Amino acid sequence: MPRTMPILTLSEMSPGQEADLFLLMTVKEELKTKTNKPYYRVGFRDGGREVSFPIWGDSPWAVDCRERWNPGLFYKVRAVYQETNFGPQLEIRKIREVVEADAADGFDPTLCLPRSRFDPQQMFDELLAIARQHIGDDGLRQLVEGLLTGNHTALLGHPAARRNHHAYVGGLLEHTLSVTRTCLYLADKYAEYYPMLKPPLDKDLVVAGGILHDIGKLREMEQRPDGAAHTAEGSLIGHILIGRDMVREMAAELRDSIALPGDMLLRLEHVIISHQRLPEWGSPKPPMTPEALLVHVADDVDAKYNMMVAILRDDTSPGPVTSRKNILMQHVYRGVGE
Amino acid sequence: MPRTMPILTLSEMSPGQEADLFLLMTVKEELKTKTNKPYYRVGFRDGGREVSFPIWGDSPWAVDCRERWNPGLFYKVRAVYQETNFGPQLEIRKIREVVEADAADGFDPTLCLPRSRFDPQQMFDELLAIARQHIGDDGLRQLVEGLLTGNHTALLGHPAARRNHHAYVGGLLEHTLSVTRTCLYLADKYAEYYPMLKPPLDKDLVVAGGILHDIGKLREMEQRPDGAAHTAEGSLIGHILIGRDMVREMAAELRDSIALPGDMLLRLEHVIISHQRLPEWGSPKPPMTPEALLVHVADDVDAKYNMMVAILRDDTSPGPVTSRKNILMQHVYRGVGE
Amino acid sequence: MPRTMPILTLSEMSPGQEADLFLLMTVKEELKTKTNKPYYRVGFRDGGREVSFPIWGDSPWAVDCRERWNPGLFYKVRAVYQETNFGPQLEIRKIREVVEADAADGFDPTLCLPRSRFDPQQMFDELLAIARQHIGDDGLRQLVEGLLTGNHTALLGHPAARRNHHAYVGGLLEHTLSVTRTCLYLADKYAEYYPMLKPPLDKDLVVAGGILHDIGKLREMEQRPDGAAHTAEGSLIGHILIGRDMVREMAAELRDSIALPGDMLLRLEHVIISHQRLPEWGSPKPPMTPEALLVHVADDVDAKYNMMVAILRDDTSPGPVTSRKNILMQHVYRGVGE
Amino acid sequence: MPRTMPILTLSEMSPGQEADLFLLMTVKEELKTKTNKPYYRVGFRDGGREVSFPIWGDSPWAVDCRERWNPGLFYKVRAVYQETNFGPQLEIRKIREVVEADAADGFDPTLCLPRSRFDPQQMFDELLAIARQHIGDDGLRQLVEGLLTGNHTALLGHPAARRNHHAYVGGLLEHTLSVTRTCLYLADKYAEYYPMLKPPLDKDLVVAGGILHDIGKLREMEQRPDGAAHTAEGSLIGHILIGRDMVREMAAELRDSIALPGDMLLRLEHVIISHQRLPEWGSPKPPMTPEALLVHVADDVDAKYNMMVAILRDDTSPGPVTSRKNILMQHVYRGVGE
Amino acid sequence: MPRTMPILTLSEMSPGQEADLFLLMTVKEELKTKTNKPYYRVGFRDGGREVSFPIWGDSPWAVDCRERWNPGLFYKVRAVYQETNFGPQLEIRKIREVVEADAADGFDPTLCLPRSRFDPQQMFDELLAIARQHIGDDGLRQLVEGLLTGNHTALLGHPAARRNHHAYVGGLLEHTLSVTRTCLYLADKYAEYYPMLKPPLDKDLVVAGGILHDIGKLREMEQRPDGAAHTAEGSLIGHILIGRDMVREMAAELRDSIALPGDMLLRLEHVIISHQRLPEWGSPKPPMTPEALLVHVADDVDAKYNMMVAILRDDTSPGPVTSRKNILMQHVYRGVGE
Amino acid sequence: MPRTMPILTLSEMSPGQEADLFLLMTVKEELKTKTNKPYYRVGFRDGGREVSFPIWGDSPWAVDCRERWNPGLFYKVRAVYQETNFGPQLEIRKIREVVEADAADGFDPTLCLPRSRFDPQQMFDELLAIARQHIGDDGLRQLVEGLLTGNHTALLGHPAARRNHHAYVGGLLEHTLSVTRTCLYLADKYAEYYPMLKPPLDKDLVVAGGILHDIGKLREMEQRPDGAAHTAEGSLIGHILIGRDMVREMAAELRDSIALPGDMLLRLEHVIISHQRLPEWGSPKPPMTPEALLVHVADDVDAKYNMMVAILRDDTSPGPVTSRKNILMQHVYRGVGE
Repeated sequence: MPRTMPILTLSEMSPGQEADLFLLMTVKEELKTKTNKPYYRVGFRDGGREVSFPIWGDSPWAVDCRERWNPGLFYKVRAVYQETNFGPQLEIRKIREVVEADAADGFDPTLCLPRSRFDPQQMFDELLAIARQHIGDDGLRQLVEGLLTGNHTALLGHPAARRNHHAYVGGLLEHTLSVTRTCLYLADKYAEYYPMLKPPLDKDLVVAGGILHDIGKLREMEQRPDGAAHTAEGSLIGHILIGRDMVREMAAELRDSIALPGDMLLRLEHVIISHQRLPEWGSPKPPMTPEALLVHVADDVDAKYNMMVAILRDDTSPGPVTSRKNILMQHVYRGVGE
Repeated sequence: MPRTMPILTLSEMSPGQEADLFLLMTVKEELKTKTNKPYYRVGFRDGGREVSFPIWGDSPWAVDCRERWNPGLFYKVRAVYQETNFGPQLEIRKIREVVEADAADGFDPTLCLPRSRFDPQQMFDELLAIARQHIGDDGLRQLVEGLLTGNHTALLGHPAARRNHHAYVGGLLEHTLSVTRTCLYLADKYAEYYPMLKPPLDKDLVVAGGILHDIGKLREMEQRPDGAAHTAEGSLIGHILIGRDMVREMAAELRDSIALPGDMLLRLEHVIISHQRLPEWGSPKPPMTPEALLVHVADDVDAKYNMMVAILRDDTSPGPVTSRKNILMQHVYRGVGE
Repeated sequence: MPRTMPILTLSEMSPGQEADLFLLMTVKEELKTKTNKPYYRVGFRDGGREVSFPIWGDSPWAVDCRERWNPGLFYKVRAVYQETNFGPQLEIRKIREVVEADAADGFDPTLCLPRSRFDPQQMFDELLAIARQHIGDDGLRQLVEGLLTGNHTALLGHPAARRNHHAYVGGLLEHTLSVTRTCLYLADKYAEYYPMLKPPLDKDLVVAGGILHDIGKLREMEQRPDGAAHTAEGSLIGHILIGRDMVREMAAELRDSIALPGDMLLRLEHVIISHQRLPEWGSPKPPMTPEALLVHVADDVDAKYNMMVAILRDDTSPGPVTSRKNILMQHVYRGVGE
Repeated sequence: MPRTMPILTLSEMSPGQEADLFLLMTVKEELKTKTNKPYYRVGFRDGGREVSFPIWGDSPWAVDCRERWNPGLFYKVRAVYQETNFGPQLEIRKIREVVEADAADGFDPTLCLPRSRFDPQQMFDELLAIARQHIGDDGLRQLVEGLLTGNHTALLGHPAARRNHHAYVGGLLEHTLSVTRTCLYLADKYAEYYPMLKPPLDKDLVVAGGILHDIGKLREMEQRPDGAAHTAEGSLIGHILIGRDMVREMAAELRDSIALPGDMLLRLEHVIISHQRLPEWGSPKPPMTPEALLVHVADDVDAKYNMMVAILRDDTSPGPVTSRKNILMQHVYRGVGE
Repeated sequence: MPRTMPILTLSEMSPGQEADLFLLMTVKEELKTKTNKPYYRVGFRDGGREVSFPIWGDSPWAVDCRERWNPGLFYKVRAVYQETNFGPQLEIRKIREVVEADAADGFDPTLCLPRSRFDPQQMFDELLAIARQHIGDDGLRQLVEGLLTGNHTALLGHPAARRNHHAYVGGLLEHTLSVTRTCLYLADKYAEYYPMLKPPLDKDLVVAGGILHDIGKLREMEQRPDGAAHTAEGSLIGHILIGRDMVREMAAELRDSIALPGDMLLRLEHVIISHQRLPEWGSPKPPMTPEALLVHVADDVDAKYNMMVAILRDDTSPGPVTSRKNILMQHVYRGVGE
Repeated sequence: MPRTMPILTLSEMSPGQEADLFLLMTVKEELKTKTNKPYYRVGFRDGGREVSFPIWGDSPWAVDCRERWNPGLFYKVRAVYQETNFGPQLEIRKIREVVEADAADGFDPTLCLPRSRFDPQQMFDELLAIARQHIGDDGLRQLVEGLLTGNHTALLGHPAARRNHHAYVGGLLEHTLSVTRTCLYLADKYAEYYPMLKPPLDKDLVVAGGILHDIGKLREMEQRPDGAAHTAEGSLIGHILIGRDMVREMAAELRDSIALPGDMLLRLEHVIISHQRLPEWGSPKPPMTPEALLVHVADDVDAKYNMMVAILRDDTSPGPVTSRKNILMQHVYRGVGE
C-alpha cells in the first residue's frame, strides 16, 4: 500500500522523515575522492528548495546514476530527508522518471522551478481588481481586462526575466502587481500635488501602463523545464515592441464595440515603449509624458530592489560589501553584523 | 487717510481695483515705437504674479522711470490693475522705493520672489511630525529633529535649486516633504514585500534619508533678492558632501547625550552621498544599501516630475511636443488638445 | 487678354522678363535704413529658387506689405525678374493671394517647396519595377507592392527628413530608390561571395528591406506649406516602429490570400527596426542578420553622402574646411581650389 | 616504392583512403579516461581542414606522442582518413617532422594555415587590372601599381587581421579586392547622382583608397607558423599611420618621374587615416571628403559581413540566436530552421 | 620735423602723451546714440594692449572711418593716449595705412598680435642648449638639433594653438620650453626612483620628446595677420601625424651620416603620436612606454595650467567661480577676495 | 646550540645556505604527478621574495603539510636555500608556527608582506621636513604636522592601494613623498612662470595637498596578514571624502590655538576631493584651482608610472608588447631587446 506514503515538497520535510517527492535533476557531476575514487555529486530541486549530495561508488544507485539519470529530467523520488554539515541531503530509497499518470498525484513540471512566494491566482485576481476599480475609462479598462484575461494561464507561470530580476515562476505577475501598486500611489500623489497640470495627469493611463508595461515578455520568452529562453521574436524584436503590439491588437479587436478617447491609445503605446527610459536599455523614446515617467520609476525601483535583495541573499564573498560581479555591477553593503 | 488703501498682492487684485503693492522691479528695457519714439517696457513682480507694461514717452512717470527706477530694487506702488490683450498691467498712481518702516506693513523681500504654493511653516511642521512619528530610534530621531529645528528659518525660504527643479522660495521644503512621503510609502511597501532581507530594511533610515538628503543645499546656495546663488563652499565642495558634514556635525554634538547604534550613522552618510546615484551627477558612490536606493528613487521622481510640470507650463513652441531646449533636454508631449 | 502672360517658375525666367508666378512668401522682416527709415525685406520661393528683396517705404506696395502680406501664404505674383549684386530680385507688378481656381492654371502648393531633382512618378515606377523583378517570393512581393501602391500619392511628395538628409519634396522616394539600388548590388555581391552561408542570404529580403526601411516616415512627418513637421505619433513612437507597424498591417491584410514562408515576416520586421544600428539613433536592436546589415549600410552611406553634398554646397565659412556646425558635426574638406 | 603514395590535403581525402599529408600539429593535451588511464588528444591541420583524435595509452604512437610530438611543428604524416561520430580522424601509419627536402614535394608551411578560398595570384592580378583600368591619373596609377607590385609576395600570403575578420592567409588580398569592387560601384553611383558636387567626386581616389586602405597591415603584422603577430612598429604606431607612410614613401620615390596633381596626395593620405572613421577605432580624423566616406563604408561592410559569416559558421550555442561572445559582441540570428 | 615724434607701443604710453604707433584695426562697429545719432566704435591693438573708443558723427575722422578704415588692416597712427572710465582710449591726430617703408621704422605685422612674455630667441637658445646638454645619444641629438635649427624662424613666431592654450606669437616655443623642463625633472626623478626598470628609462628620449612633441604644429597652422589658421594638411592630417613625419624626414636625411640605435626612432615616433593620450584628443595610441607617459604628463599640465591662468584673467562673470563657458568647460574658483 | 643558526630573509640567502626564516604561507595546492600520485605545491614569502616548491608524497613533511600547514599562517622555518630551473626553492629542515616569543627574535607579520624599497621612518621624516620647511603659513603647517604625527604608526605600514599602485607595505608613504616632491617642483615652477596670477599660486597649499591628498586611505583600508582590505567606511564613503574629514577634524582641533587664513581650509578640502579629477574616478568636483590641478597631476603621473613599472616587471606574455590584461588596460611596450 504505497499510497500511504505522503507526497511532499522538500520544504515540507523534517529531518529523518521519509516521503515521495517530484524533483527536477539539476546537477550530475563526476568527481574523485582524495583517494582517487570516482563518485558523483547530484542535485535535485523542487519549487522551494534545492539539495545536493554525493552518490558514492559503492552506493546501490551508483550504476543507475552513471548510466540512467540525467539533469533536466523529472523524477519521482522516495527518500529520507537529512540535514548535515554539508546542507540538506536525501537518502534515496526509490527513484524513477516521472510518467504521465503522475499528474494525477499533483506533478506539475513548473512546480519544480523556483517560484514566487505569492500565489499566482491571487495576484492575478488582485491585478484584475485594480484594473476594474481604478481605470475609469470604459474602453481602456476593457482593453486592460481583455489582455489580462486573454493571457491568464501564461501570466500565472511567467518569469519577469531570464536572469535579471524576478527570474522565477510567477515573477512577471509579482513584479507587475508591485509596479501597479506603486503606480497607484504615485498617480494619486502627483495628481493631487499638481492640479494645474495641462493636460491633467491621466491616472487611468498610469494604472494601465503599470499593468501592461511588461506584457510583451509573454512572447519574448518561453518557459522551459530548465528555465526561460528567448523566442526568435523576443531576440529580434524585443518585449518592448511586442508589448505595444499586443496592446494595439487588443485595441483593434475592441474597436467595433468601444472606442478609446482622443490620443489615449497613442499615449499608452508610448508608456510601454518608453518604460526602460534609455535607448541602450531598449526604449526607443524616453518618457515624454508624466504618465510614462511614473510608470518608468515604479518599474525601475521594483526591479532594482529585487536585484539588491537577490544579491544580498546569494553573494558569498567575504568583507562588509558583496563582490561587484552581480547584475547591478556594483558592491552592495551587507552591514557589519550585530 | 491713506491707511484706508488696502495692501494687496497682484494675485488678489481684480480688474479696475486700486491698491498698494510691494513689488520687485524685474525689467526695464528701452524700446522704440514704430514711429521711432523711445519708451520703456517695465516689469514688476511679487510672489505670485508678474506684470509687464510700457511707460510711454509722454507718461508722467517717463522721467522717473528713465532716471530713477532700477531693476533689482523693491518699490511700494499704488496702482490700478487692468487686464489687457497684452496681459495684466498696472496704471501707476504712486511709486517709491521701499523703506525700512514698510516691514511693519508686511513688506518682506522674499515675498516678492516666486514661491511654493504651500505654506512653509505648515510644511516644516509636517516634516517634523513625520520625523517624530516614524523614526523609532531615539538617537536618529534626535539627530533629524536637531537638524530641522536648528535650520528652521533657513528652511522656510530656501529653494531646492537655482534653475533645475523647485527653484523658488520654499522649494527645498516642498521637495523634501514630497520625497519623504514617497520614502514612507516605499519603505513600508518593500519592508512588507521582502521580510527575509538581511539586514532588514531600516525604515528609520529611509525616512531620515528622505528628510536630510538635500540638507546641504542650505550651505551650497544663498538666497539673494534676485534669486539663489552658489556659495564658495557650494561651488568647491557641493551640497552632497556638505549635507553629510551637517549630519556628522550634529551627530558629534549629540554624541554625549545619546548614541546611534552600530553602523547607523555610516549608513545615513551613505544615503546622503549616494542619492544622486551617478558620479557625473555628483555622487561619489552609487546606492549600495536598500535604504539608499529608495531615497534615490523618491528624490529622482520628484525632481523629474517637477521639471516636466514646469516644461509643460513654460514651453511656447508649436506642435504636439515641446522644444527639447529644456532642463530635461528632451521633447515633452503636450497632447493634441480636445 | 491677361492670358497671354506666361506662367513660369523662378528658374525659368531670364533677367528683364515679366511673367506670372505662384510663390510662397517665406520672409517678411521690418528693418531700418541707415537714415533710420523703416522698410521691409521680403522673401518668396518656388520649388527651384528663392528670391529676397526690399520693399522701401515709398514703394507702392509698402502699405500692402505691412498690412496684408504674410509669410506662409501663397501668392500669384506678376513681376519682372532682375539679377543684382544682391542676388536675384523681383519688381512686383501685381500680387494677390492664390485662390482655388488657380489650381486650374497649375498651382500646387507642394511645387513651391524645395524638391528632388528627379521626377517622383518616374522614381516610383522604377522602385515598383525593382520590387517586381527582384523579389522572388510571391507573398513578400505582394506585401511590398501593396505598401508602395497603397501609399503612392504620399510617397510622391514626402521628404526623407525635416532637416537631416533629403529634406525636400520627393526626398523620401529619392533616398529609398538609391538605397534599394545599393541593396541590390550588395545582395548580389555577398550572395556570390559567401555561397556557404547558412541560412543563405535572402536577396528578396534585402530588396524588400531597402524599399520599406523608411516607410514609417509617411506617418512620422506630415507635409505642411512651410515644410515637414512631426506628427504626434511620430514624436511619441518614431518612424522605425511605425514602419514595422505598416508592414505588419499589410501582412495581416494579405494573410487570407497568400502566406509569407517561415520566419520571413519576422526577419523583415527586424530589418526595419535595426536599420539605424545604434539604440541612440532609434534602433532597439542592432542588425542581427546579414540582410539587416546590408540594408543598414546602404541606408547609412546614402544619408551621409547626401549630408556631405549639402554641407559642401551650403557652408560659407572661409578656409580649406567647412565649419563643424553642420548636421555631421565635423569639418568637411572643400579642397584648395585650382 | 613509397613514391606511389599520393600527397593529398585533408579536404581531398575520402573515408578509408590512405595518403601522405603535410600537417601542422595544433593541439596536444593530456587527458584521462573514465577508468583513469592517461591518453592524449592531438590535433593536426592543413589549410582547409582540422582533425582531432585520441592517442590511447596502448597505441604504438603513445611514447612518441608524449615525448617527441609538439604543437607548432610541421609533420609529414601517412594516414588513413576516417569519418566518425566524433568528426574526421586519422589513423597514423607513419609520421616524422618535415625536412627541408619536403619543399620539393610541395610542402609550404603557409599551406597549413587557414587560407582564403580564392587564389591569391588571381586576386592580385585582378586588383592590378582594376588599378590600371580605373585610375585615370598617371601619377596616382603609378603610385598604386608601385605599391602593389613592390609588395607582391607579401600580399599573396597576408591575413587582414589576427582575429577580427579575414584572419587567414590571403585574407588581406581578399578583403582589399572586395572593398575595391564596392568602391568602384559606389564611386560610379554617387558621381552620377550628384554631378553638381564641387570639387567633383574623384573616382581615381576612391579606387586608389580602396586598394591601399589596409596596405599598412603588411608592416603591422608578420606571418608566423602559428598565425599572425603584431610587430613592434604595428603595436606602437598602427597600420593606419604605417599605410600612409608607405604611400608617402612611394610618392617620394616617384616624385622625380611624375607628379601628383594639386592636393591629390593629401587627399589620399586622408582617405587612409580616416578609413576606420572613429578615433577609438584608430582613425585620428573622421572621413572629411566624399572619397574618404565611400572607402570607409566599403571597408566597414566587408569586414562586418565577414565577421557575421564567421560567427554563424562557428557559434555552437543553442537557441535561435548565437551567443554574444563574439567579435561583434552581439547576438546573430541563425533562423528557426526549415 | 616730424621725425622727432617717438614711435611707441600702447603699453609704453602714459596718459596725455602723444606718439606714433603701428596698430592693427580689430573692430569697426556702427552704433547709435540714445538720441539716435549714428557713430562708430573702433578698436586698435598692438602686441601688448588693445584700445577701443568711439568716433562720433561730428568727429573730423567720421567720414574716413566710415569709408576708408577697415578691420584687419595695419595703420600708422599719431595719437594722444588717455585713460578714461571706459578704459584706455586714443585721440587720433593722424592716421594712414602702413606702407612698405614703415618696416624701416620697425613695423612688423606680427608685433601687433598678442605675444609671449618671453623673448623668442632666448627661449630658442635655451631649448637648443638643453638638447645639447641632456641628449647623450649623438644621432638623437643631431636629429633634434636639426629640427630646431631647420625651423628656427618659424619657431620664433608660432603660436601653440589657435584658441586653446598659448595662443599667441611665440606661444609654441614658450610651451615647448616649459614642457621640456618638466620632462627633464620627471626623467631624472623617475630614473632614480626605479633603477630596476627594464629597459631602463631613456632620458634622452624624454627630453627629445618634450622638444619635438608639438613640432607638427608648424605645418598644422599658419600665421596670418589676424591670427593662426589651419592649413589643409593640418585639417586633414593633424599636427600629431605631421610631427612624426618631420621626425622621420629628418631621420632619413641624417641616415647617411649617423644612425639611431635599435628601436630609438620608433620609440620617439611613439612619444609624439601618443602625447595627447586619448583617441578622441587625436592620439591613435596611448602612451605605451614610460617615456611617452612622462612627455604626455608634462604637456598636459602645462597646457591646462595656461588655460586656467587665461580663464582667471579673462572671465568677467560675478560670484566666487568663473562661468563654465571656457576652454576647460568647467568653473574655476577665483577666491573670495581679501 | 641552535642559537647559532642565523635568522635571515629569503633575499639574504645564497644557494646551499641554511638559516632560520620567518615566512608567511601563501599557497597550498593539491596536485597529481603524471603517474597520478598526489603531491602538494606550497608557497612561502617574506617581504622581499616568494618561493614555491613541491612536497612530494614520500616527503617526511607530507603528512604535516596535508594536515597542519595552512595558507595565511606564519611559520618559523629552518631550511636550505636552493636555486633550480623551477626558481628558488627551500629544503625544509624544521618548521613550526610562529609563537609570541618570536617577536623578540625580530618577527613582525608585516615584514612578510611585500614592502616599499625605502625605509618608512626615513620617508616619514623627510615628509615632515618638507612640511616644516616649505609650508609658510603657521596654521596650515601645524595642521599638516598634526595629521602626520598623529598617524605616524599607521603611515609607516600602509599600502597606497589594494591592487592598483604602490600596493605594498609603506606604499602610501612612498607614493605620498614622491607626489609631494613633484608638487614642490611644479609649484615653484608655475609660481615663477605666471607671477601675474590672481589670486597668486599658493605654494603652501600645493605642498599640503600633496602630503594629504591620500590621507583618507588610512581609514579606507585596513592592513591584514594577507593584504589590505576595504573597511565598511571605505566601501560606503571612500578615501576622498574621508581624507577631507580628517583635515576638517584636525582643523577643528587646532581652531582654538591657531586660525587658517581666509578660504585656505576650503581650498585645501577642494584639493583633496578633486585630486582624482573625474567623477567616475571618485572626485565629485574637478580641480577648480591651480593648486588642485598641480596636486592632481603630481598624483596621476606617480600612480601611472608605478603601474607601468609593475606591468613591465610582471607581464609574461610573448611579443614586443605586454598583454592588455593589466591595471592600465592597455599594451605596454617592452622593447625589442638588445
